[in-house]
Amino acid sequence: MRPPAQVTVWGEFRHEKTNPKVAVHYPDGMHETIAAFLRPHPDLDVTTAFLDQAENGLPVDLLDRTDVLVWWGHMAHGEVCDEVVAQVKRRVLEGMGLIVLHSAHYSKIFKALMGTTCSLKWRESTDKERVWNVAPHHPITRGLGEYFEIPNEEMYGEPFGIPTPDELIFISWYTGGEVFRSGATWQRGNGKVFYFKPGHETFPTYHHKEVQQVITNAVRWAAATVRIPDDCPNSPPLEILPFDPEQAERPTIGFR
Amino acid sequence: MRPPAQVTVWGEFRHEKTNPKVAVHYPDGMHETIAAFLRPHPDLDVTTAFLDQAENGLPVDLLDRTDVLVWWGHMAHGEVCDEVVAQVKRRVLEGMGLIVLHSAHYSKIFKALMGTTCSLKWRESTDKERVWNVAPHHPITRGLGEYFEIPNEEMYGEPFGIPTPDELIFISWYTGGEVFRSGATWQRGNGKVFYFKPGHETFPTYHHKEVQQVITNAVRWAAATVRIPDDCPNSPPLEILPFDPEQAERPTIGFR
Amino acid sequence: MRPPAQVTVWGEFRHEKTNPKVAVHYPDGMHETIAAFLRPHPDLDVTTAFLDQAENGLPVDLLDRTDVLVWWGHMAHGEVCDEVVAQVKRRVLEGMGLIVLHSAHYSKIFKALMGTTCSLKWRESTDKERVWNVAPHHPITRGLGEYFEIPNEEMYGEPFGIPTPDELIFISWYTGGEVFRSGATWQRGNGKVFYFKPGHETFPTYHHKEVQQVITNAVRWAAATVRIPDDCPNSPPLEILPFDPEQAERPTIGFR
Amino acid sequence: MRPPAQVTVWGEFRHEKTNPKVAVHYPDGMHETIAAFLRPHPDLDVTTAFLDQAENGLPVDLLDRTDVLVWWGHMAHGEVCDEVVAQVKRRVLEGMGLIVLHSAHYSKIFKALMGTTCSLKWRESTDKERVWNVAPHHPITRGLGEYFEIPNEEMYGEPFGIPTPDELIFISWYTGGEVFRSGATWQRGNGKVFYFKPGHETFPTYHHKEVQQVITNAVRWAAATVRIPDDCPNSPPLEILPFDPEQAERPTIGFR
Repeated sequence: MRPPAQVTVWGEFRHEKTNPKVAVHYPDGMHETIAAFLRPHPDLDVTTAFLDQAENGLPVDLLDRTDVLVWWGHMAHGEVCDEVVAQVKRRVLEGMGLIVLHSAHYSKIFKALMGTTCSLKWRESTDKERVWNVAPHHPITRGLGEYFEIPNEEMYGEPFGIPTPDELIFISWYTGGEVFRSGATWQRGNGKVFYFKPGHETFPTYHHKEVQQVITNAVRWAAATVRIPDDCPNSPPLEILPFDPEQAERPTIGFR
Repeated sequence: MRPPAQVTVWGEFRHEKTNPKVAVHYPDGMHETIAAFLRPHPDLDVTTAFLDQAENGLPVDLLDRTDVLVWWGHMAHGEVCDEVVAQVKRRVLEGMGLIVLHSAHYSKIFKALMGTTCSLKWRESTDKERVWNVAPHHPITRGLGEYFEIPNEEMYGEPFGIPTPDELIFISWYTGGEVFRSGATWQRGNGKVFYFKPGHETFPTYHHKEVQQVITNAVRWAAATVRIPDDCPNSPPLEILPFDPEQAERPTIGFR
Repeated sequence: MRPPAQVTVWGEFRHEKTNPKVAVHYPDGMHETIAAFLRPHPDLDVTTAFLDQAENGLPVDLLDRTDVLVWWGHMAHGEVCDEVVAQVKRRVLEGMGLIVLHSAHYSKIFKALMGTTCSLKWRESTDKERVWNVAPHHPITRGLGEYFEIPNEEMYGEPFGIPTPDELIFISWYTGGEVFRSGATWQRGNGKVFYFKPGHETFPTYHHKEVQQVITNAVRWAAATVRIPDDCPNSPPLEILPFDPEQAERPTIGFR
Repeated sequence: MRPPAQVTVWGEFRHEKTNPKVAVHYPDGMHETIAAFLRPHPDLDVTTAFLDQAENGLPVDLLDRTDVLVWWGHMAHGEVCDEVVAQVKRRVLEGMGLIVLHSAHYSKIFKALMGTTCSLKWRESTDKERVWNVAPHHPITRGLGEYFEIPNEEMYGEPFGIPTPDELIFISWYTGGEVFRSGATWQRGNGKVFYFKPGHETFPTYHHKEVQQVITNAVRWAAATVRIPDDCPNSPPLEILPFDPEQAERPTIGFR
């Protein structure tokens, strides 16, 4: 019997405190709503954290025991400490999964892992978003049909400034005429990354059944199976090399 | 008639000044040796720059008119200003090509574009490196045969901490028993990136005919064809949306 | 000065003869309409061919001098000889480019190169198709804006039964609520393949300016730069091997 | 509790009957040796089949209940019935996993799924093969170290005529100076494909511990999780379309 995956759901938890239109949907914060639909699954052991806690809620010992981190941020990306971002990145490259939600396309951690602008078109209005499943074989789409609809969502449109995904999972259609690669995966080092577009703060998106299914599937798919620390070793040969007359003079490069 | 591509060859230019074993091969610096074999080509207009110049040799106006940047660094990666790295990254994402040579696998700019550790195995010894051409159709391998050999090179070995390349161009075999993905490409934003492994400073690698052919081919392949600045626009709908009773209250999100 | 690329535009040329709604747009066949907008470009040398000619219009000597083949087929995929398909496939793998248009998603040659079903959703109706450019850096989108619209087109919808494209170029939005990966590239052997969705026979799609631009760009992008015949050679070692006591008994495997 | 994965191990089973150098290692056939190391795992339910059985050992009902098929073939690729190949391909595209071993790089089924030549260099001699693990995070490399060695194996060398793998798992080093992408994965439709190079018939490769580990891991990784039949449906719109004056005349395209 495998032990449960250690899931940490991180939320910025700012809009919820200042905007009544957000608070009505997420009185305890989006991170608690997300944690609440994950917790009933016995294979998941769920913790929550948020920006205004010490060390942005993500001390190294928590990160070190986290198998998959769920991340929602928007108005305060710049307030996340660079050191925390560096630790999250280290953990992803070691093997921790990362689920990046909605406006976290512009989070420091997602941009650092992608290496690109992560920019996109956007519009806050009355669009319907129809999320098409283009990877029906994938664990992230388990239990879903060909598409699902979110009655009202912010529009995110192409071009989306990301590297070519390893796997494209969803493409969204919007009433207003745009399309978007709304679900995509990337392997980064030993960790799996999944970006999932839905989740504008003024809509009840994380109460939506299919959105919950996607996030639950993604958490299971991304949970770490390895922990491989970074290493850049000076390696002795495995086969016999010709004599090296300069061996004694070879530098020992400690700064690498 | 297309105007020549603007090529900037950047070198760290430190080993050459302090290590006679390097200076013997590159008395004016590796960047000048590389520029020297590129300059005879009338379709290339070649400039050089190095770390200890003002703004690390890469002021914004030079970057803005550069179509492809060639980068060699090693012992002083940490001395490249973060602001310069940010400007180089901006230019790559706008469309500038980037050729990353040898130990620049650990440069700030390559790590920023890849999002991964970029770590590898290494050994400075008497290995022969046989570079296998696994993409004979690719512009970067034009004029090459099935493989070429470098009599003595530093070994770089797998696993190499990079995202899956868009195109794998070369795989190297080493006497000591290792293999390495020694040539690979990635699209990042609107710019092309090529990593090419050969080029240890104590060997005359950049005087090697096939190595020069690869770099010349790569410079042509990577040269910018577009310049597309980053943008994340609020976009009006292209189709008629349902009435939005809350339109007046929608935020104008200046901080995005 | 490079010689012009040899372009062969192949059409099924059946609908045009029997359906007046098709003939009104393409009285000489779709292949001639496509050839007509390619011919004015001095870097392209354009030939046409169609199904009911001898050897389906594609004798080996024509294929052997073709740098890029444009293919439209629909109602008579099954009538293309398997031997002709095998020769086209051989030429693509040697280096010839292939532009696959619209209903040719179900052509023998496209299915043979993809290895998948190439199935999709479809509807012939009054949808508008808005083609979003998701690769603004790519040669295939040169001269295009962020999107272009085709007033009436057949709907093709996801999931599209293709391998993950090397490069995703276009995603289409349809009035009826679907999305589609409407432009995508794959490297197959030494040849480039581009699938482009627009082109339903009862609409004047190939008279559309942006559609013409895409096909012209794609023809230039895909034109062969190499010709590398298939080979599976028994290869002598490049390094000294241990003595082989069984060397004389090693089979000479002629059947490989 | 998930039911065990249904594994079918298919062998050509010809060399073993005629060549004593093969029979000494595999008296009951390679397929039985492979099945023997898979059978002890309670999560795998293992069947064997071979070429000279009725329907090449792969009747449709067996394929329909197979979750993952392991395939070894060499001297008799041409004797596998095209109809059997078509059924195996259908099952892979529906979701069945396929593990392609060694000389099956030239099997009809692998070539049909790849769409390329699948050609390579080869040499039967005394090379050592050192298999480098370039994907330490991947389920297929679970339990392996950085590399493993096979004392004597046939050399397979680059260039290997395959489409760019989705994931590159292994790169092999050979004494004679070559390299090879010796483990690679591709998604094809709803099924997973893994090619694994080791396994020349005159060497005891399938008795090798790490080779057995790789195949066992791969079988688990590739086992079907879905069964999605091919479909190309005429689809009604999900949003209101403009009036279609020609609706009655739209063809009902039965031949698609």
